[in-house]
Amino acid sequence: MSKVAIIMGSKSDMVVMEQAAKVLNEFQVECDIKIVSAHRTPEMMVEFAKTAYDKGYRVIIAGAGGAAHLPGMVASLTPLPVIGVPVKSSNSIDGWDSVLSILQMPNGVPVATVALNAAQNAGILAAEILATQNEKLYKTLLAYKDSLKQKVIESNKDL
Amino acid sequence: MSKVAIIMGSKSDMVVMEQAAKVLNEFQVECDIKIVSAHRTPEMMVEFAKTAYDKGYRVIIAGAGGAAHLPGMVASLTPLPVIGVPVKSSNSIDGWDSVLSILQMPNGVPVATVALNAAQNAGILAAEILATQNEKLYKTLLAYKDSLKQKVIESNKDL
Amino acid sequence: MSKVAIIMGSKSDMVVMEQAAKVLNEFQVECDIKIVSAHRTPEMMVEFAKTAYDKGYRVIIAGAGGAAHLPGMVASLTPLPVIGVPVKSSNSIDGWDSVLSILQMPNGVPVATVALNAAQNAGILAAEILATQNEKLYKTLLAYKDSLKQKVIESNKDL
Amino acid sequence: MSKVAIIMGSKSDMVVMEQAAKVLNEFQVECDIKIVSAHRTPEMMVEFAKTAYDKGYRVIIAGAGGAAHLPGMVASLTPLPVIGVPVKSSNSIDGWDSVLSILQMPNGVPVATVALNAAQNAGILAAEILATQNEKLYKTLLAYKDSLKQKVIESNKDL
Amino acid sequence: MSKVAIIMGSKSDMVVMEQAAKVLNEFQVECDIKIVSAHRTPEMMVEFAKTAYDKGYRVIIAGAGGAAHLPGMVASLTPLPVIGVPVKSSNSIDGWDSVLSILQMPNGVPVATVALNAAQNAGILAAEILATQNEKLYKTLLAYKDSLKQKVIESNKDL
Amino acid sequence: MSKVAIIMGSKSDMVVMEQAAKVLNEFQVECDIKIVSAHRTPEMMVEFAKTAYDKGYRVIIAGAGGAAHLPGMVASLTPLPVIGVPVKSSNSIDGWDSVLSILQMPNGVPVATVALNAAQNAGILAAEILATQNEKLYKTLLAYKDSLKQKVIESNKDL
Amino acid sequence: MSKVAIIMGSKSDMVVMEQAAKVLNEFQVECDIKIVSAHRTPEMMVEFAKTAYDKGYRVIIAGAGGAAHLPGMVASLTPLPVIGVPVKSSNSIDGWDSVLSILQMPNGVPVATVALNAAQNAGILAAEILATQNEKLYKTLLAYKDSLKQKVIESNKDL
Amino acid sequence: MSKVAIIMGSKSDMVVMEQAAKVLNEFQVECDIKIVSAHRTPEMMVEFAKTAYDKGYRVIIAGAGGAAHLPGMVASLTPLPVIGVPVKSSNSIDGWDSVLSILQMPNGVPVATVALNAAQNAGILAAEILATQNEKLYKTLLAYKDSLKQKVIESNKDL
Repeated sequence: MSKVAIIMGSKSDMVVMEQAAKVLNEFQVECDIKIVSAHRTPEMMVEFAKTAYDKGYRVIIAGAGGAAHLPGMVASLTPLPVIGVPVKSSNSIDGWDSVLSILQMPNGVPVATVALNAAQNAGILAAEILATQNEKLYKTLLAYKDSLKQKVIESNKDL
Repeated sequence: MSKVAIIMGSKSDMVVMEQAAKVLNEFQVECDIKIVSAHRTPEMMVEFAKTAYDKGYRVIIAGAGGAAHLPGMVASLTPLPVIGVPVKSSNSIDGWDSVLSILQMPNGVPVATVALNAAQNAGILAAEILATQNEKLYKTLLAYKDSLKQKVIESNKDL
Repeated sequence: MSKVAIIMGSKSDMVVMEQAAKVLNEFQVECDIKIVSAHRTPEMMVEFAKTAYDKGYRVIIAGAGGAAHLPGMVASLTPLPVIGVPVKSSNSIDGWDSVLSILQMPNGVPVATVALNAAQNAGILAAEILATQNEKLYKTLLAYKDSLKQKVIESNKDL
Repeated sequence: MSKVAIIMGSKSDMVVMEQAAKVLNEFQVECDIKIVSAHRTPEMMVEFAKTAYDKGYRVIIAGAGGAAHLPGMVASLTPLPVIGVPVKSSNSIDGWDSVLSILQMPNGVPVATVALNAAQNAGILAAEILATQNEKLYKTLLAYKDSLKQKVIESNKDL
Repeated sequence: MSKVAIIMGSKSDMVVMEQAAKVLNEFQVECDIKIVSAHRTPEMMVEFAKTAYDKGYRVIIAGAGGAAHLPGMVASLTPLPVIGVPVKSSNSIDGWDSVLSILQMPNGVPVATVALNAAQNAGILAAEILATQNEKLYKTLLAYKDSLKQKVIESNKDL
Repeated sequence: MSKVAIIMGSKSDMVVMEQAAKVLNEFQVECDIKIVSAHRTPEMMVEFAKTAYDKGYRVIIAGAGGAAHLPGMVASLTPLPVIGVPVKSSNSIDGWDSVLSILQMPNGVPVATVALNAAQNAGILAAEILATQNEKLYKTLLAYKDSLKQKVIESNKDL
Repeated sequence: MSKVAIIMGSKSDMVVMEQAAKVLNEFQVECDIKIVSAHRTPEMMVEFAKTAYDKGYRVIIAGAGGAAHLPGMVASLTPLPVIGVPVKSSNSIDGWDSVLSILQMPNGVPVATVALNAAQNAGILAAEILATQNEKLYKTLLAYKDSLKQKVIESNKDL
Repeated sequence: MSKVAIIMGSKSDMVVMEQAAKVLNEFQVECDIKIVSAHRTPEMMVEFAKTAYDKGYRVIIAGAGGAAHLPGMVASLTPLPVIGVPVKSSNSIDGWDSVLSILQMPNGVPVATVALNAAQNAGILAAEILATQNEKLYKTLLAYKDSLKQKVIESNKDL
């Protein structure tokens, strides 16, 4: 099955980004995690993005904080779908910087942006993308949706 | 080949959303356009979302302005990837309302959000998603990326 | 007497939303509390909204955080007055997301929005709505207003 | 039948606020329009609010721009439900000032806030409030909701 | 000498507002402190504002949080200069609500707004206003300015 | 009688700032207008501020746009009350820059900030300050307040 | 003398960015203009940045709108000082996106950000940087500062 | 070698600003630290800025919070490049006030603004400026960039 790459700008983003890996593991989707910094390792980033397709990756999840350039730059270098996770870092201006740096991409180079710190949703979205051509995974996702519903039903019993 | 559904909350969103259809046509990806309002036709929306997969849609692009609930609600009803386009409508508070209403989805239900009014990027992202399992389309997208580069090279000649 | 329904998107909203129930109990207005999620139980939400009038509810208070679609979606499904409570959830962008997602509804489908986390005010507003045709409750509210004044007079004595 | 009062801080707000009257007329709900300024006629405002119930008003719609104090001040003076309409006036900071001045009321004194410039929705909300005890009006509102749906269906035929 | 009135919407604002009294005491300017709530004691507020001049007050400092109507409403009721202190209260949206509710007054009714929580500056500004016709107080303020300078000079010695 | 100085950072601010002079003329308060730029004529600004009291000015109105340093810098150089007018200039970020640059002064150095572009209110506030020790001017301001009320009463006749 | 490179993400930025060239020409500082897009020509951008020092550039001015990655990415690839100009492009969210994408760079990789659309200031800043080791240019800048002062003095004569 | 001056508005800014000195020491660039307040010691600030060039300073780093006027005012008084560091102080409105007060300088007087609290980046930028004419320092900066890359490579080994 197709693989998902999870990259992030800094080790400190791991606490957020590992939630993407966790949910992909739950769905039995293979994924790799790597630190690739747009600003500290720009050439490694170019190399990573240019070779991602040939290495078997079909979706890339990229998380970064502040002036978050990693998702958009990777999207500029490969036609693979790139999911951007705005991470609320320490000196962020309330997260607005990472949200806008990832979301507001120019025409021609989209990034699929999810909510602030929403790495779990990035993982689910990656699975949804792969499931468009994988019926088994599609059924896993249907079951996941059902489990969300069951939890709400359970929580009503506790009231 | 898999189809893309383009839906929007109101006829007035068409001027923005037709850019998604235009780029998909360019890439020879089949798509349908429909007005489905979360707030005026909620039951039609449920029906649409629940049957989208069986009708052959593999990606849904949903555009809406203001308190833009359409993309998120459709995402709650189907595991297909949903791309949300925040539309800057007339009484919008500078577009912040549609951006945040689409982007900030809770855990479990992602929406792939693109930039304000960026329906063209929504179309490209839909093609990228389908191209993960379609090598011909992948090559079309590589060629598209190259055409973007050529335009920059051309514009430098004009300086 | 007419009943008030208090619904919320997640169990974690209870700490905020129970203040609505508390003030309604104080005013001896009957109310029920239920967890109904727009994104995790969309069909339960449709069912709830469509049957609310016949179950005797005359006002619905709906609280949610982030991309808060619950109040607006319920309002799209019933002509009962819906009071929206923006809840400041954990990954919220300072509460702006829930405020704008609830407030900025399109023409045709209003939501009566109160302040961030202001479930107590939602309860009072629900009582005000019922009191428009209930003189006893109206007098209770007049007395409540007077009690607010007395507290200010008391606090001046402590200075 | 109960009456609705529509008040506004300045004659210049009329272009927005008359939409409330228009939709109430459509629903055959009686309403009166008056200019009452919190800042230029504070004592007239106190007088208006204190006597509104006895004059037969059951809902008050109050619109204002900038530091919009009218809705909240009226709500402090009467237990009638007050619907606040933030108006985007000329020197407004993008409407944020009127939205926040109306929405963020303290505990004890709610204002039912609608979207920026959404006087039409204020009118509908007022009708919804009166319809809680008026079955004929409730049916009118159900029919109105149906007409919204029909317009969407029509607009799909035009595509 | 002329007196300054310090009023605030709630006892909880005291921790901020007492800084105004402290600096006025330092400057030997007489002041009184009182809790007057625009929303809970609107009629007491009218009474206070209408009689302030005759009671010998020449400047009014008014602090409030959230939808902060107290400074503007008092300014609507008296031609005395009113200094508004936006207080960052618990459910405030980062203080923006109180800042904009106080600052963005319409033409005709100014409020002299100071920074968020800056009650000390409100006290200094009140003294500056009284000092326009009081040479002794003017000299006190000159000396205060010099003391600010001395503190900077001292802090450089510690480096 | 005491004089008011009206200064501004640039000739382009005149269209806004002349409203201050107009209302002061109406109240028969003497005022002078001058262009003094914090950034282009910093030393002229220091000179102006240091000599303002001796030249007979008792209030200074300072208007500026963008990173608006003029009001705060003048306030740092004289204990006269300084009224700051945030001007919405061409490349302003919606006026937020001038508002925050003027309002958010540190402890010790207040600026009496009025609303965006509200030079008229700055003029009225200057008159209110002078009226604290000038009964004739105080009565003029009472009459002005009454004229505001009359205009509202008139506009109701037109409805 | 050292050269300045002026680059921008799109031809449409030229109307803003040519102001940088204009002021540098005035100061007789050599500069070149080129369109280099982070998102459409990422590899050309890497090549440009890696060779800029050897081509004789000593300062780089980079302008871009929306999710503006060009200044930060160039700064990641060269230790030359990079001046970032946020450009307010058509679908920008009031310019906030480009401002924050350029300003909020992580530790280790600074970008010298100037105001929204302030390409003229970028040119002046570039000259100031080169003037740190060029006394003639330093004197030119002193004369420029004096000319700003003269213009203010002139505009006062026109009042 | 040329010296860098690090100034700040208040002793409380030292915890942020000392990071600039630290990185300059690392690069063996001489620097001095001083507290100079635009609002409490305006004349000392004028004196400092006017004599900075003759004292051997070639770059000035200025940090301040709230209505942060120090960087812009110093830039108005000297043609030396001024790097502004917005400091998030205690009563700041989320840092927006200091960011906008420093960034949004008018045409003619640039400030090289870095990210919120990013004094380290201010130090690096100062070194980059001096390195434009100092090959040894330029090589130090190249080595620093390489060290950033090595840290990312190391952190990948820990995964």
